[in-house]
Amino acid sequence: MKIHQITIKDVARELGVSISTVSRALKDHPDISPQTKQMVRDLVEKMKYKPNAIALSLRNRRTNILGVIVPEIVHHFFSSVISGIDEAAVAAGYNVMFFQSNESYEREIMNIQSIINSRADGVLISLAKGTKKFNHIKQLLDDNIPVVFFDRACDEIETDKVIVDDFEGAFNAVDYLIKTGCRRIAHYAGPQHLQISYLRKRGYISALEKNGLHVEDDLIIPCDSYEGALEVTRILMGRSKPPDAIFTVNDMTAVGTLNTIKAMGFKVPDEVSIVGFTDGLVSSVTDPLLTTVSQHGFEIGKKATEILIKRINEEFDSPKPITEVVKTDLVIRNSTRKL
Amino acid sequence: MKIHQITIKDVARELGVSISTVSRALKDHPDISPQTKQMVRDLVEKMKYKPNAIALSLRNRRTNILGVIVPEIVHHFFSSVISGIDEAAVAAGYNVMFFQSNESYEREIMNIQSIINSRADGVLISLAKGTKKFNHIKQLLDDNIPVVFFDRACDEIETDKVIVDDFEGAFNAVDYLIKTGCRRIAHYAGPQHLQISYLRKRGYISALEKNGLHVEDDLIIPCDSYEGALEVTRILMGRSKPPDAIFTVNDMTAVGTLNTIKAMGFKVPDEVSIVGFTDGLVSSVTDPLLTTVSQHGFEIGKKATEILIKRINEEFDSPKPITEVVKTDLVIRNSTRKL
Repeated sequence: MKIHQITIKDVARELGVSISTVSRALKDHPDISPQTKQMVRDLVEKMKYKPNAIALSLRNRRTNILGVIVPEIVHHFFSSVISGIDEAAVAAGYNVMFFQSNESYEREIMNIQSIINSRADGVLISLAKGTKKFNHIKQLLDDNIPVVFFDRACDEIETDKVIVDDFEGAFNAVDYLIKTGCRRIAHYAGPQHLQISYLRKRGYISALEKNGLHVEDDLIIPCDSYEGALEVTRILMGRSKPPDAIFTVNDMTAVGTLNTIKAMGFKVPDEVSIVGFTDGLVSSVTDPLLTTVSQHGFEIGKKATEILIKRINEEFDSPKPITEVVKTDLVIRNSTRKL
Repeated sequence: MKIHQITIKDVARELGVSISTVSRALKDHPDISPQTKQMVRDLVEKMKYKPNAIALSLRNRRTNILGVIVPEIVHHFFSSVISGIDEAAVAAGYNVMFFQSNESYEREIMNIQSIINSRADGVLISLAKGTKKFNHIKQLLDDNIPVVFFDRACDEIETDKVIVDDFEGAFNAVDYLIKTGCRRIAHYAGPQHLQISYLRKRGYISALEKNGLHVEDDLIIPCDSYEGALEVTRILMGRSKPPDAIFTVNDMTAVGTLNTIKAMGFKVPDEVSIVGFTDGLVSSVTDPLLTTVSQHGFEIGKKATEILIKRINEEFDSPKPITEVVKTDLVIRNSTRKL
């Protein structure tokens, strides 16, 4: 039988103060009032809590390293986020170690273990598609290591987040397609347990509904990769009533869609309009150039890093987590009809 | 005045055995004969060498983490190398932390310090453009941390290397251009202190010479980025005698060249042929598709990682460094004329 070990978190919950307050009280930090320190010490004594001396000493020793976990390092969107992280970190005197989860929950756990072993001062993470449990993230917070989610976050964990306005980005893209005369708009959707995919689909549906168009289930197709699009598009465009526009959950899927549609002899955008989501490198080298929703990856990375560093240095007035929403922009290029 | 500290390396050199033999002898490793152990101990005594107990203990404790330094994580070529590294590492039970030097010597030193602090078992590195001194790499080897260079190596450091056949790749590309009828072939060249850029230029020159064509200095232009190509190509193609082909040092430069040439109204490949080097993602989405030299980045990453892990586990018969040359392939697409 496992005995429940009392943690700093339990002490904080009991007293109604932040974990960081308890931690600093135990370290005799000058910012904490003598009253609070006494209160914490009394409760710790009462709860028979013993701070792990080694853990505390390691925590005190700053490494000036940030650990970053991305689903795929080579991913178009994460590329720009990585650049933003790197720039903000270096400007503040931090170095950055990047890990990739390869969309796997097990790899994510392994990465977090490596980050703990490397004694990084804080962690930036965008969740893997395979991650549906979050104890490994809780572990970091319990160990008093600040965590900031970027892009792919989850509701279960109370920590800082920098996310994209996925709903509005998708809504604006589909609304634009309708304004240019498209009426049968398909959506290639990502895995629905990921908030970003779910919200993009909701934005698509909402734009159709607002414009009085019928939402057809067989025009919503699970597909979120270049290779997937090559396959799925042949089937979709071979139907008796093919769509006149396709809104894809990301750029690479849009490029696969574009290449297949061109190869099948359809004209883009006259017969079919295509809109992606990301605004990565590829969108500016395709022919025609891709209309897409810009996520401002660089800005997301920069903002998340700045929040993390402020959290590490305990520069926020309140321990309450903050959520920043970075607004998207529709970048209109040549894969969609003109207004 | 700094006193010269005697290291394991000095002991190894003195005895004519490998560093790893000395290290294992000092740790009383069962693979080392009692005679050798005695010999090492005697010399250490004589040289007043004191193994750093902490360093040894840290070295003994495996972390199963590999540290990787790339010039740019988001770079087209390094993307595929990273995938190869990741696959080989995970297959062998290692996790990987990636750092980017952003082409800066100072960042590279900072990265190596972070890797040492994180006690990685070994290091894979591709040198930054700004790196012209190598003491930071020597430091790793002196600390008995195996290092494998990939792609961008240097001659000064004796360690394992996995490199590309840059000379032959460039030679074959330019030879092909000549065979298709091109006679005025320009080359956009990278920084010449980097071996890869130097060898690609040598391959270009050698192919011209072999085919009896004159090497014109004003057709060799320093340019190795997308943005650079936008600028340089306007000037080059505006000359009274523009080239009929351009061989660029990498794909992104080729894409910038292609876009500018199309925008200026030239026909590709009828009036101008373009060949890149890398075979990254972009080469398969441009219009026309890009002819390029495939560097097999994935294979390079995989091979370098396998060598590093064998080195960590001391599975090589000899401590002598090995150099693996990965052969390139010319991928013929539509930005060059047909034979």
